[in-house]
Amino acid sequence: MSYSLNKPCRAADVSHWDAEADVIVVGFGGAGACAAIEAARAGAQVMLIEATSGSGGTSALAGGELYIGGNGGTAIQRSAGFNDHTEDFYRYLMMAGGPDADAEKTRAYADGSLKHFEWLVEQGLPFKNSFVAQRIVEPFTDDCLLWSGSEEAWPFCESAKPCPRGHTPQAEGIGAGGRLLMEMLAARVAELPIDVRYNTRAAALIVDQNQRVQGLAARHEGKDLFLRARRGVILCAGGFVMNKEMLRKHAPHLERANRPIGTVDDGSGIQLGQSVGGNAIHMNEGFVTIPYYPPEQLIKGIFINGCGQRFINEDCYHGRVSQHILQQAGNRFWLLMDNDIFAEPEFGKFMQIEIGATGESWEEVERELELPESALVSTVETYNRHAVNGSDPLFRKAAKWLRPLVTPPFVAIDCRIDHALYSSFTLGGLDTLPTGEVLNAGREPIAGLFAAGRTACGLPRWGAGYSSGTSLADATFFGRMAGRQAASAAQ
Amino acid sequence: MSYSLNKPCRAADVSHWDAEADVIVVGFGGAGACAAIEAARAGAQVMLIEATSGSGGTSALAGGELYIGGNGGTAIQRSAGFNDHTEDFYRYLMMAGGPDADAEKTRAYADGSLKHFEWLVEQGLPFKNSFVAQRIVEPFTDDCLLWSGSEEAWPFCESAKPCPRGHTPQAEGIGAGGRLLMEMLAARVAELPIDVRYNTRAAALIVDQNQRVQGLAARHEGKDLFLRARRGVILCAGGFVMNKEMLRKHAPHLERANRPIGTVDDGSGIQLGQSVGGNAIHMNEGFVTIPYYPPEQLIKGIFINGCGQRFINEDCYHGRVSQHILQQAGNRFWLLMDNDIFAEPEFGKFMQIEIGATGESWEEVERELELPESALVSTVETYNRHAVNGSDPLFRKAAKWLRPLVTPPFVAIDCRIDHALYSSFTLGGLDTLPTGEVLNAGREPIAGLFAAGRTACGLPRWGAGYSSGTSLADATFFGRMAGRQAASAAQ
Repeated sequence: MSYSLNKPCRAADVSHWDAEADVIVVGFGGAGACAAIEAARAGAQVMLIEATSGSGGTSALAGGELYIGGNGGTAIQRSAGFNDHTEDFYRYLMMAGGPDADAEKTRAYADGSLKHFEWLVEQGLPFKNSFVAQRIVEPFTDDCLLWSGSEEAWPFCESAKPCPRGHTPQAEGIGAGGRLLMEMLAARVAELPIDVRYNTRAAALIVDQNQRVQGLAARHEGKDLFLRARRGVILCAGGFVMNKEMLRKHAPHLERANRPIGTVDDGSGIQLGQSVGGNAIHMNEGFVTIPYYPPEQLIKGIFINGCGQRFINEDCYHGRVSQHILQQAGNRFWLLMDNDIFAEPEFGKFMQIEIGATGESWEEVERELELPESALVSTVETYNRHAVNGSDPLFRKAAKWLRPLVTPPFVAIDCRIDHALYSSFTLGGLDTLPTGEVLNAGREPIAGLFAAGRTACGLPRWGAGYSSGTSLADATFFGRMAGRQAASAAQ
Repeated sequence: MSYSLNKPCRAADVSHWDAEADVIVVGFGGAGACAAIEAARAGAQVMLIEATSGSGGTSALAGGELYIGGNGGTAIQRSAGFNDHTEDFYRYLMMAGGPDADAEKTRAYADGSLKHFEWLVEQGLPFKNSFVAQRIVEPFTDDCLLWSGSEEAWPFCESAKPCPRGHTPQAEGIGAGGRLLMEMLAARVAELPIDVRYNTRAAALIVDQNQRVQGLAARHEGKDLFLRARRGVILCAGGFVMNKEMLRKHAPHLERANRPIGTVDDGSGIQLGQSVGGNAIHMNEGFVTIPYYPPEQLIKGIFINGCGQRFINEDCYHGRVSQHILQQAGNRFWLLMDNDIFAEPEFGKFMQIEIGATGESWEEVERELELPESALVSTVETYNRHAVNGSDPLFRKAAKWLRPLVTPPFVAIDCRIDHALYSSFTLGGLDTLPTGEVLNAGREPIAGLFAAGRTACGLPRWGAGYSSGTSLADATFFGRMAGRQAASAAQ
């Protein structure tokens, strides 16, 4: 009997089932937990297998922001003075999804986001009614609402009325929100009759002669288990940022980022889907960031590359700036500032962002960085010439962040790709319907197979449009949908 | 019985075989013809099915250049004074293949290219012993050897000794070489006992219970045919540049190119492979070009984008320049020149490349293009400042192409993406071994299935490294290998 992640096992070859359930969920991160909860509440007998010895997955490593909006906004958004229209929310998400944004998923999420937020609160996730008006990456405090994307930046601001939509659970400290989210979801799972099996790794899908998925083969403590899923298997096994071969094949530019955010994320979920004809899409896309702000005054600086050129409006989301860095040739990038705006990046030590050069004139900085004569100086001159009039005709940074960089000493913060740390995770995955049904290359559903979270290609599918909170929002929202759909699938 | 391009047909459901062969080749372009010829010569009974009513495929639309070198070079290269070492050839191809260049295929091709050239000559393909020293895209004449890549340009020239390697068959006129190649291959196919079936379109693969490919279902004049392949099916059905949905899903930037080069190229070959677990890789990569030279003096101009910035050494291959255009945001791009180098691009009318602005000063050109003050002028000033010393410290254009642009009147040639024509085809496809064996995501061969040409991901797999002649070279060389391998596969 020959099978693997990449080759399904035939049901006819399975001599006995070690266990059965209506729905088997693979992976106990945010998507898998939500899928299991909803499937169980819909009356299905649910098994949840997890490769590691505990719950959490990569969701537990996240800051915990959830990108929420539409329908007038949450009480927190409204308290802060924002009234978020569903159509603005929809248009922003469609732009952020890039040239192949998924209109069906985006519509479902724009319409349903507020109710999803209420559901998360009902499950026990606390949110403080507070707004951080300053541009940050995630709160050091237990505060909630923040600008977590490029809403106020060109070109997004032209298509959709800006609104802050990043909702961080009430937990003190960086990264605490994701842990709290997963602790809460794990507690709900524990209350339900869900058969959770840790240290159990999916090894192959099992298909019948009609190619319907009937379950999966798994490894647990050195033994093969044959697990029957009467209604469906839901793959919520993360992305592939920890799989070097897959990165090389599909997203080689992400190899340049040296701080992958992942737990298992070995691409096994995606491979399982592909083994039965599932279509993996946008596999070259990923999130990447070097968080150069806070403090937000650094947004008044300008980024240059090794040719001394600017390349982006620096007031857009840090991940969008970083994406533009990673997709350029060369490793040398700096953030330039003058003495009036100088500050150390708050994540500087953590991300190995250091001072690369200082000088009493821009000519001196240019020489110290060993840039060709006039390469940096002409860039700063052109920037200053227009900034003094409150305009940035090249990249359209908003007026509030524009001021000429004229007060010495001048500083270049070193953001070299081979020196500073760039965080990353993958955005490509299995093509799915909003219901989680996995599609083949002809967009026909594969019977008995579902996916959610980063195993699927969801709302966030374009690195240059990524906004904090869209991945967790997508994973939890569409994880829930997949759970409900699988629970009601034909046996 | 339910099957499609995306869902294989079960052999058990096939009540009768309409025809049988040892090897069935899908697609009568360069790869398919070579596969069929070699399989037949190896003693296999071969069927060649083609969706259209004639031979040629997209290969017949090509200029016909074949990228050949190594082992000291062809007689034509040696006559022109070039001695091409295999390791230089190998290193160039590896760089041109990008971050995931296929070392195995590149090694096989670097070692075997010269013999492959001899084989093509033996089949009857004529090459004139002549070298076009000027930089061109393809000969208007019946001449042979040309610089068809970025061999002399940075960074390629630093890793591999430059050598011209584009060999164009002896045929007068643009595009004549590809037609001649295909006429010659079709004549060889006609001499062999190959069962050629036109107007026959592959509809689904047929697999047995062990998932071995046993043949394919095809459509011919409204009827279903079940075709048994005792040893293997070879997919040589082209890429997917004519499939808008696949382009959107996998290579959305190529949607911006408005002159796809393709015949069928509907992605059906790739989809057939995916339907049995074949791994499609580098699906976001494509070739794109706006041929701005000849005449080669235009290489002395500089390209700028809508921010007035340069972005590439203009002396690299036209397709590499164009790739850098297409991957940037914005649609506005110009080639700047002064009166000393001014000439109309020879492909100008054909590709809708027109004059965008002229002026007695660069300031005037800048205003006429509605660029922000100093955006263009500072770029030209920086370029001129270094060009006068024979250096281009920003992008490293070679000294022979460097001269300050100081003689009025000045001209900006308009290469806007939404105005000029950009040719394109796709480079992503099924992951294969050099033998053509199609691999799943775990790089295990799928029994009975082979692919070559643009249905596979071959030597050319990185748009920024594409060189003219690598796609035809890859298609014919690895088509031959796939034919031999399939002919010897177990029944």
